[in-house]
Amino acid sequence: MSNKKELSIGLVGYGFMGRTHSNAFLQAPRFFNLPYRPVLKAVCARNADRVKSFAENWGYQSVETDWRELVARNDIDLIDIASPNNTHAEIAVAAARAGKMVLCEKPLGRTAKEAGTMVDAVESAHVPNMVWYNYRRVPAVVLLKKLLDEDRFGRIFHYRSQFLQDWTISQDLPQGGEGLWRLDSNVAGSGVTGDLLAHNIDMALWLNGPITEVSAMTETFIKERKHNLTGQIEPITIDDASAFLCRFANGSMALFEATRYARGHKALFTLEINGERASASWDLHDLHRLEFFDHRDEGQLRGWKSIHITDSEHPYMKNWWVPGLQIGYEHTFIHQVADFVSALGENRAAAPTFRDGLATEYVTDAVLKSAKTKSWEKIPVA
Amino acid sequence: MSNKKELSIGLVGYGFMGRTHSNAFLQAPRFFNLPYRPVLKAVCARNADRVKSFAENWGYQSVETDWRELVARNDIDLIDIASPNNTHAEIAVAAARAGKMVLCEKPLGRTAKEAGTMVDAVESAHVPNMVWYNYRRVPAVVLLKKLLDEDRFGRIFHYRSQFLQDWTISQDLPQGGEGLWRLDSNVAGSGVTGDLLAHNIDMALWLNGPITEVSAMTETFIKERKHNLTGQIEPITIDDASAFLCRFANGSMALFEATRYARGHKALFTLEINGERASASWDLHDLHRLEFFDHRDEGQLRGWKSIHITDSEHPYMKNWWVPGLQIGYEHTFIHQVADFVSALGENRAAAPTFRDGLATEYVTDAVLKSAKTKSWEKIPVA
Amino acid sequence: MSNKKELSIGLVGYGFMGRTHSNAFLQAPRFFNLPYRPVLKAVCARNADRVKSFAENWGYQSVETDWRELVARNDIDLIDIASPNNTHAEIAVAAARAGKMVLCEKPLGRTAKEAGTMVDAVESAHVPNMVWYNYRRVPAVVLLKKLLDEDRFGRIFHYRSQFLQDWTISQDLPQGGEGLWRLDSNVAGSGVTGDLLAHNIDMALWLNGPITEVSAMTETFIKERKHNLTGQIEPITIDDASAFLCRFANGSMALFEATRYARGHKALFTLEINGERASASWDLHDLHRLEFFDHRDEGQLRGWKSIHITDSEHPYMKNWWVPGLQIGYEHTFIHQVADFVSALGENRAAAPTFRDGLATEYVTDAVLKSAKTKSWEKIPVA
Amino acid sequence: MSNKKELSIGLVGYGFMGRTHSNAFLQAPRFFNLPYRPVLKAVCARNADRVKSFAENWGYQSVETDWRELVARNDIDLIDIASPNNTHAEIAVAAARAGKMVLCEKPLGRTAKEAGTMVDAVESAHVPNMVWYNYRRVPAVVLLKKLLDEDRFGRIFHYRSQFLQDWTISQDLPQGGEGLWRLDSNVAGSGVTGDLLAHNIDMALWLNGPITEVSAMTETFIKERKHNLTGQIEPITIDDASAFLCRFANGSMALFEATRYARGHKALFTLEINGERASASWDLHDLHRLEFFDHRDEGQLRGWKSIHITDSEHPYMKNWWVPGLQIGYEHTFIHQVADFVSALGENRAAAPTFRDGLATEYVTDAVLKSAKTKSWEKIPVA
Repeated sequence: MSNKKELSIGLVGYGFMGRTHSNAFLQAPRFFNLPYRPVLKAVCARNADRVKSFAENWGYQSVETDWRELVARNDIDLIDIASPNNTHAEIAVAAARAGKMVLCEKPLGRTAKEAGTMVDAVESAHVPNMVWYNYRRVPAVVLLKKLLDEDRFGRIFHYRSQFLQDWTISQDLPQGGEGLWRLDSNVAGSGVTGDLLAHNIDMALWLNGPITEVSAMTETFIKERKHNLTGQIEPITIDDASAFLCRFANGSMALFEATRYARGHKALFTLEINGERASASWDLHDLHRLEFFDHRDEGQLRGWKSIHITDSEHPYMKNWWVPGLQIGYEHTFIHQVADFVSALGENRAAAPTFRDGLATEYVTDAVLKSAKTKSWEKIPVA
Repeated sequence: MSNKKELSIGLVGYGFMGRTHSNAFLQAPRFFNLPYRPVLKAVCARNADRVKSFAENWGYQSVETDWRELVARNDIDLIDIASPNNTHAEIAVAAARAGKMVLCEKPLGRTAKEAGTMVDAVESAHVPNMVWYNYRRVPAVVLLKKLLDEDRFGRIFHYRSQFLQDWTISQDLPQGGEGLWRLDSNVAGSGVTGDLLAHNIDMALWLNGPITEVSAMTETFIKERKHNLTGQIEPITIDDASAFLCRFANGSMALFEATRYARGHKALFTLEINGERASASWDLHDLHRLEFFDHRDEGQLRGWKSIHITDSEHPYMKNWWVPGLQIGYEHTFIHQVADFVSALGENRAAAPTFRDGLATEYVTDAVLKSAKTKSWEKIPVA
Repeated sequence: MSNKKELSIGLVGYGFMGRTHSNAFLQAPRFFNLPYRPVLKAVCARNADRVKSFAENWGYQSVETDWRELVARNDIDLIDIASPNNTHAEIAVAAARAGKMVLCEKPLGRTAKEAGTMVDAVESAHVPNMVWYNYRRVPAVVLLKKLLDEDRFGRIFHYRSQFLQDWTISQDLPQGGEGLWRLDSNVAGSGVTGDLLAHNIDMALWLNGPITEVSAMTETFIKERKHNLTGQIEPITIDDASAFLCRFANGSMALFEATRYARGHKALFTLEINGERASASWDLHDLHRLEFFDHRDEGQLRGWKSIHITDSEHPYMKNWWVPGLQIGYEHTFIHQVADFVSALGENRAAAPTFRDGLATEYVTDAVLKSAKTKSWEKIPVA
Repeated sequence: MSNKKELSIGLVGYGFMGRTHSNAFLQAPRFFNLPYRPVLKAVCARNADRVKSFAENWGYQSVETDWRELVARNDIDLIDIASPNNTHAEIAVAAARAGKMVLCEKPLGRTAKEAGTMVDAVESAHVPNMVWYNYRRVPAVVLLKKLLDEDRFGRIFHYRSQFLQDWTISQDLPQGGEGLWRLDSNVAGSGVTGDLLAHNIDMALWLNGPITEVSAMTETFIKERKHNLTGQIEPITIDDASAFLCRFANGSMALFEATRYARGHKALFTLEINGERASASWDLHDLHRLEFFDHRDEGQLRGWKSIHITDSEHPYMKNWWVPGLQIGYEHTFIHQVADFVSALGENRAAAPTFRDGLATEYVTDAVLKSAKTKSWEKIPVA
């Protein structure tokens, strides 16, 4: 590390995720007591003017326009990949080989195979690594994980999770290029399966353990759109919607669904888990609440409790404000930085590692395959 | 009683409340095991054609067009008064003197003075009597009363209650005559104070004990309307909205508010009570739910619980359907009949009695007076 | 018909559904203007004492202990089947052959094959017939159907529906016999697929049209239970939980799930539909509300609207109380009687007919088959 | 200004509000395009060790332990007062006289008289000034203000607002000293009236115009507590709860209530406004939602809409994330900095100014007086 107290960051990409990560690096040390202070050393993107403007706004000390230059720099400890999915593997492998720590936006690769090369690279190089499945750091979800770990739910019977959006319903929306590469399967790898369901799956694997088999269905509602890079009407090859049934190793059964065609829902990531003794649910549109049902409550007073996750005894919350005052979306990234840096100080890995990210890709690959074969598909162990 | 098993009812009035009462008399014995079976012996109203039609629909055995005739009949055990407020006192006093049991729609009288004569009459005659403050029989509210009686709340600090409607906002709405006598102070006695706040107050006195003093404010937003009986534009003399601050004998402080000018609210009767150890709230738009907060819950899991009051262990509910299946508005009247008839079988009074109804009128009188004097007014003990 | 004004009912079964139907026959003519008045002529069940007690409570004029006697009576116009599933087909076929109208509790038969014989019987006999899929008569759902018929949603992309209960989680719960025959596959036909999912499917077919193919998964969490009739521990052969993915003929995709192992949910029947221009959702725990999202609303003011379905312009509601005052579960049966009797007066069929009920059974059969074959199964046209 | 691009901040106080302000100064320029960049030049507090630690965490370039030194510095453009209420007036007056811009935490002074001296000072000195009534910058509330300004509500009939907390219920909680000076009337000026109701009032004056008269009630539930500075049991002289009725100049009537004894509520700031054509409500526990009822909606589809205020067309939100992703409490301060600095660039005042803050104090003074006199009190014009 360039300095005992500093952790020098080299960011690739300045889009939406470049902003959330930069903010997290800056805010984490102000609210959490961390062993290292992230320093925004350099940001890299191809457009020189825009990357300079981004660097100035966030306080990056320098810019690069070729990620290979960034990876080669000696004053960088950590490469943070926030560029489109098709760039993840190449950059991550190179960064690991250069001995850098590597953080990578989700999904790890466009396929499990691609993700596998990334896992191999960071594990061979023994470099700290983490995937930005940020929703694991929502305080309400962390509390749920804690309640599960304390075995308050008993045997788990059901799990269900959705990610519902509605931003691609218009036929007039083009595909491709900045902001719209998520509609281009060459860049994104897949549609909602990799973009949205990957979040649901990562969370489910963490909360409820391995998935063993899936039966899936996908749909592309709008078959062709103008491509911003070619100017032509081109076929859409991503999945607009994706749903699957599955079984978990713990015997529970589950339904998952993601779509960009659910009118009225902006980013409605939901999850619910039903156990013998308790149930809980959560959703992203009110991320500061956990709904909890405890069957051990007195019979006549049983009900779903809406817990406002803003007390000092709730995960992460003593570092923020006072009871009743909610935090928001960006804080999940801040928590992830805080956890990564804390783990670094103790030579621990911070989850989800690249290997954890690979486990999710085994499931997304199986989902996409099952939708084609119309068969149940088994999930390999990551 | 005309027959050991039968309880012969003579109903006065066939409006909205005539329907709810008739339905309750018919339904109560089908769902509750009662010592007497209410028999719809006669219904009385001035319009002969309409009262016949009403009688046919509900199965009344006979009709009358003069309530004095009804009261004079020997085959009637109980006079049920569901006619406009200005008729309550005269009918109730006559019925009591004739030795009939008397049920009366709320408010008991147009003023505490009028209500006092009714109390005197039924108490002198020693006849069973009850006021139709039906919301005391909402299962969720009865559960709340039980929780309070078990001292689960500790010292009470706050009480608040509203009754918000929006049906008189239009300037085009006339006053007076059928369906609209509630806008005519000669008939109704007052506006929302007697019509709506009376419900809030009756409930509060039952749940939280006596009120000692009030400071009130009333308003008439629309000053004149066409009168349906005269055809003329006439001043509006009722209160369109009424609110007051008060103190209870138990040391808690409270706010009450009722209006017919709260756009978007149809019949939003709400209440909330905050104690040292617990709080609860309820509202009429989702009357099958009780919201409950218990401070003795484990700290990190404290929250407001939404209890779906449909289990067999909830008040009245074992007599209805199965868990999850809600009942509605009309059931509050059915419960009130069931309770009245059960009490009758045990020679007990069923609350709220006329004396309980008088206690509410002491408060509504004080509210109306305080709004005029702009002073705090003390409440007499009923 | 025995009398131009009367419709003489012969009810089979006095359990939970016997109560809901009896109440509906009594209440419908009091709240709706109907061409015939249902008369409770006879109720039939094997236990003579209990059927007499039931008859007395509800006002049935006579009792039978053999349904064949009931079917043979000349003073009965309509046979209403509210006995366990394994009795439906035989009684319905005999009743139709005797020229009676036939109403039958859902599911129609234990299998599509059994249901098919019932359809054949009523259609050959040209007798009015209806299945008690009562939830089609929830006012909020009827409003939704109307909005769909007015094409306010545009192209439909998604449908999802659940029926979540938790009453069989305890290992101590026995199977078989009164109240528990739903756990015995010989009597019930299947578990939650026929008991709960059938409701979800009937509603979906009505709202969203035919389902073309399904991929399903079922589970029996508790493998054996004491049987109340034999006193022995016996295997459980019903499905405790059932879920499926499917496609509709209109191109939309869907997920369905039912279970009796979802802790915290009593009777949570939910549905949601997402169209190009609008979305809506509803659930049985707050059956008096419809959640509606209209994309044509002004952009900055778009949101999910909670419509309190208690206004006179809402389906059925002008016959009940006033705005803000909710009705409950039992009213769905009252509405179904009102609709059936009204249709009878106009020589129209009232949906869902037995043929409609058969369409649901094609889906439930395919669901159960798919869960075994682990393949997608096509749905025949009813 | 020390530099055309920089705005040098001198902060007084490092408590809870010191943190929210510091964060806001740092974050505002990263998310908003501002004419000046706030620079954290110095922070001042009496405890040298702790102020150094605070300065290091937030990046203040220097520290002071005497606010007079801070005010005297030439390299400071703006004095930001985040120290306890009893220090506001003296510091603000000195800062204004020294020609500094002055920002001050709410309430402006302990009394209207004290606040008046502060208004005089900043107005005489012609220095930009603002009070941190941060909740005016909640995007949902700003949208509401916009809807009101567009006259979508018509004539206003009702306003109601609460601020409910429960953190002082325990008798064991001491008073006085750090973190607890809000229980000491010498320091705080008053209890919930100045601490909580002041927020409700400021918001109401902004949204609904001037208040003309009030009738109030206050209560101190726990009469004495140990004082942390003296170690003695001492009387509590603040108000634990405060409520009032009032009339607005626009003819609407209102209820306000604040307390620290409402078990189950952490920081439940609520408001509702009812107009002829529309109503809206909002609360701080779900600050990212606005509830809106529009009477001009089609009759059968009227309902309360829950608008998730996360779209780019919502106030401030295009500067944050994407639809569906919520922001939290701290953002209200960031918005206030952004608005202040933007206004500065255009030589405009940013509301609420000290004069606006004084208007609130006229009301809080009248509330406290009315509670003592038990009379209606008129409100002077600020």
